[in-house]
Amino acid sequence: MSVLRIALAQVDPTVGALASNAQLIVDWTRRAVAAGADVVVFPEMVLTGYPVEDLCLRQSFAQASRTGVDGLAGRLGKAGCGETLVYVGYLDRDEEGPRNGVAALFGGAVVARQFKHHLPNFGVFDEHRHFRPGRTLEVLRLHGVDIGLAVCQDLWEDGGPIAALGQAGVDLVVSPNASPYERSKDDIRLPLVARRAAEAGAPLVYVNQVGGQDDLVFDGDSFLVLPDGALQTRAPQFVEDLLLADLDLPAGGHEAQGDFHGLRLRRQVLTHAPLRRRAAPAAPIISEPLSDEAEMWAALVLGLRDYVVKNGFSTVVLGLSGGIDSAVTAALAVDALGPDAVFGVSMPSAYSSSHSRSDAKELARRLGCNYRVEPIADLVRVYVEQLGLTGVAEENVQARVRGMLLMALSNQDGLLVLATGNKTELAVGYSTLYGDAVGGFAPIKDVFKTEVWRLARWRNAEATTRGEIPPIPENSITKPPSAELRPGQLDTDSLPDYHLLDDILDDYVEGDRDHADLVAAGFDAEVIEQVVRMVDRAEYKRRQYPPGTKITLKAFGRDRRLPITSTWGHGHNQPTVAHHGVGPGRTVVGEA
Amino acid sequence: MSVLRIALAQVDPTVGALASNAQLIVDWTRRAVAAGADVVVFPEMVLTGYPVEDLCLRQSFAQASRTGVDGLAGRLGKAGCGETLVYVGYLDRDEEGPRNGVAALFGGAVVARQFKHHLPNFGVFDEHRHFRPGRTLEVLRLHGVDIGLAVCQDLWEDGGPIAALGQAGVDLVVSPNASPYERSKDDIRLPLVARRAAEAGAPLVYVNQVGGQDDLVFDGDSFLVLPDGALQTRAPQFVEDLLLADLDLPAGGHEAQGDFHGLRLRRQVLTHAPLRRRAAPAAPIISEPLSDEAEMWAALVLGLRDYVVKNGFSTVVLGLSGGIDSAVTAALAVDALGPDAVFGVSMPSAYSSSHSRSDAKELARRLGCNYRVEPIADLVRVYVEQLGLTGVAEENVQARVRGMLLMALSNQDGLLVLATGNKTELAVGYSTLYGDAVGGFAPIKDVFKTEVWRLARWRNAEATTRGEIPPIPENSITKPPSAELRPGQLDTDSLPDYHLLDDILDDYVEGDRDHADLVAAGFDAEVIEQVVRMVDRAEYKRRQYPPGTKITLKAFGRDRRLPITSTWGHGHNQPTVAHHGVGPGRTVVGEA
Repeated sequence: MSVLRIALAQVDPTVGALASNAQLIVDWTRRAVAAGADVVVFPEMVLTGYPVEDLCLRQSFAQASRTGVDGLAGRLGKAGCGETLVYVGYLDRDEEGPRNGVAALFGGAVVARQFKHHLPNFGVFDEHRHFRPGRTLEVLRLHGVDIGLAVCQDLWEDGGPIAALGQAGVDLVVSPNASPYERSKDDIRLPLVARRAAEAGAPLVYVNQVGGQDDLVFDGDSFLVLPDGALQTRAPQFVEDLLLADLDLPAGGHEAQGDFHGLRLRRQVLTHAPLRRRAAPAAPIISEPLSDEAEMWAALVLGLRDYVVKNGFSTVVLGLSGGIDSAVTAALAVDALGPDAVFGVSMPSAYSSSHSRSDAKELARRLGCNYRVEPIADLVRVYVEQLGLTGVAEENVQARVRGMLLMALSNQDGLLVLATGNKTELAVGYSTLYGDAVGGFAPIKDVFKTEVWRLARWRNAEATTRGEIPPIPENSITKPPSAELRPGQLDTDSLPDYHLLDDILDDYVEGDRDHADLVAAGFDAEVIEQVVRMVDRAEYKRRQYPPGTKITLKAFGRDRRLPITSTWGHGHNQPTVAHHGVGPGRTVVGEA
Repeated sequence: MSVLRIALAQVDPTVGALASNAQLIVDWTRRAVAAGADVVVFPEMVLTGYPVEDLCLRQSFAQASRTGVDGLAGRLGKAGCGETLVYVGYLDRDEEGPRNGVAALFGGAVVARQFKHHLPNFGVFDEHRHFRPGRTLEVLRLHGVDIGLAVCQDLWEDGGPIAALGQAGVDLVVSPNASPYERSKDDIRLPLVARRAAEAGAPLVYVNQVGGQDDLVFDGDSFLVLPDGALQTRAPQFVEDLLLADLDLPAGGHEAQGDFHGLRLRRQVLTHAPLRRRAAPAAPIISEPLSDEAEMWAALVLGLRDYVVKNGFSTVVLGLSGGIDSAVTAALAVDALGPDAVFGVSMPSAYSSSHSRSDAKELARRLGCNYRVEPIADLVRVYVEQLGLTGVAEENVQARVRGMLLMALSNQDGLLVLATGNKTELAVGYSTLYGDAVGGFAPIKDVFKTEVWRLARWRNAEATTRGEIPPIPENSITKPPSAELRPGQLDTDSLPDYHLLDDILDDYVEGDRDHADLVAAGFDAEVIEQVVRMVDRAEYKRRQYPPGTKITLKAFGRDRRLPITSTWGHGHNQPTVAHHGVGPGRTVVGEA
């Protein structure tokens, strides 16, 4: 049979690493060509990594990217990949400014360049800042098949490039993407892309990047969908993958050129050679999407691993309190880097319960990671005595001594410190600045407390299923949360029950709702007031918090950009003087 | 004579404080009306404060702003200000989304609303994220004078609203602005606005906000310029001011309506009453712009004062090392808040020179601020002994003990901690994370080291001129900079000479140039490599640094958004594995 064989190259590039990304592209193209591919599609801006942020404003970087993609075409030609059409995302720049570009490489040269038309400028995206929009569509005829191109956001806009391609006529659409993971996004992507395939009247190849980049993680989940909505093939999530798909395409012989939906469509014939005859078609693989918990876990593991590795570290250190947050963080670190790369430190104080030490030790035993105990009593005493500290000041010193201790180990041994705070704590400011908030990376920063418990139970159950030891001690999951900074302290002394709190935060933070909406949703007015006030007043703390993997719709950071100085809200929609000197319980930092 | 009297209301609103900002608008309008004003112009988004960032995406906030501006119109009508036309910037929202709006208030009602057309999305601005652009121009006839409106960025774009107003015909243009201060920006604004006045064929009233908002400070510097380029009146910088200007305007009787440059122009007559006859014209005041140093100093003082006060604090604490950075920061704090509100702490270690203590004490004496000494030897010893620390780990512990000590005082007494790092240190990462980098605000974060010295000399000279004691001890200015974390340590052990370093940073950071440009500029290749590498590797530290007042073209923070994980650059434009575990001298934090 004669089919077009397409390779979906779901790879993990590194931002700024032009040379090694180019090598990655060469290696994967060779593998694809060896497997008989006619077309190889790489993710959006694979040559530069994504997002490069303000790096794209530097002329020298854009120039190196342009030169890089030309060089790549030559290398592929010499490497015997010249008969294969390769789509490579890169950074371009012309007289109008930087462009989010995709180059088509064929016969040892760049045969076409198309620039992204729709530039997302919401959520974590700043593409109006970084790029000028494109105005052309490049349709390439390969073995009689007319192939159109749509870059990432261009798929999401009605009446955009897909509508134009549908009107002009193509046989296939390829789409390079860099679409960050967030929960349930895969449930939206597939139906959307299926709709666009119908609109284009052609199969649509969706290729997404995989890997972590600062606070973003890309899940891959590349796929090919037919115009009738049928899913032909789908790659696994959170791993690199080379997926092959064979398409028996009618040669449409489309000829329409000119302007469609305001875009200039150009056609080019690359080769008149007929499709190759193939003995065996590529087996259509359809990977099952992960469960909700498995997906989150995989996202957190990959986000952590790539941050550590791409920044040149190999080992991490974290405090083990015996509580659920540090237990889950440690389990993620072991899954990401292996037990030998993880150093857990128990730092008991005078107020630490006996179970906090035994649970920490048991965790380390189950994980097989490194473990040491560093009591903090002597370190705390000198501060308390020299400065005569009491109350919250004394509580915070304990947290800060632990932070300093971890940083000292980091300095001494070159370990990256992991902060163990969860999203609920970060939201209400229930953490100590320069205390438990220290670290180079915060793996569960975007995981609400109730989800931390859920993930812990899921991870343990997974281990049981696989016949392994559940990594997290049951006691760490079931005991009431406590910061243990004073005798008998419980989180619930300062905060509402975590299930209620997370429900409110889901509306206030994720949903961007306000006091009146929360009242309408049936929450108690006093609790709303307390929660909203805590969230607003903790903005200054969040600004100094380390990055961590985004997994929700709205992560703290560039997803949610709020002023520190603001008197709006505070529960009653009446302006008051901001005074974030006073916050909740252990986490009070009497200072901005 | 019959003239139109215009009041330029250069006020300092607070973000989110709808009620108190409304009160501010009422108070200033009453003052303007008492002074005989026909027109009062407030800054851009004065009702909500500016920038409100993602607050503008909250429906309830936009609704409150809309309601607020309607209520304001009613209040002004009842307060006897109904015969005066008042322009008030506010947040609007309609079916298309949020709008950066200006309402015209007259006769107790909102008589017109115009939305900003050109939405800046570069530098510190994210207005494509936050607003939908307007499509109309509202021209109001008051006493026979046709008044057009252009909001902030609308002035800066060629062929925009001003071109449309010029073509349609108006007698006067008013422009509410929120234009953040940066050095030498006032040299650009006035000629630009003069050009626009010529283009409009009418006098142009430029009203800018004054005050600090997180890392931005607005300088005011409002003015009125005639179509021939003559400056009629100009307000002082960095203070609130009500400036009056009388204009003897020809009643043009312009009638053209419809579309101009893609904008729909609408005309409305507010009153046919003739201009009032006035006995005495308003005296045209032209404030002299401040000198470069005076302007920077005033910016830093106001930025600091507004951050402290608007966040509900009244007192600050900072470490006094005897060096120039803490001396200048303390002097700024005293100028901003008064000596009683400033608490200086000398924290000598075993490596502190005798002059570090005596210079710190002398500084406090000159400033008249609070002063105490807290030796850190005992605090450091326990860490070093318990963990067996050496080298950089031991150096960093000293810095961190000082940071913790300041935070403990902050917790104990409700003081806001000031970080004393300068832009040069921040650029190359010459600071200790959670050490000297702790604080709620960092007043000289955007001041290069060589500028810190320059400001110190200027401030001392100012004092001498005024017959006051120069605040900064001469020795703090002249001695070679040292972190004093090991015996005999000097900054130049780890860094190039500060003048050379600042020259390179000016190109690399401010100018966004790259390695090749720096070589072409004649810098030594090895030094470039060292500096670029240090800057790139310190990104993770800058992310956790407190906010501080922007005074340069490109401040660290939202002005310069770079990935932490990136292997681009490092001096030779060749990707390498990032490894920011190792940095310069004292500031090494062996961790991301």
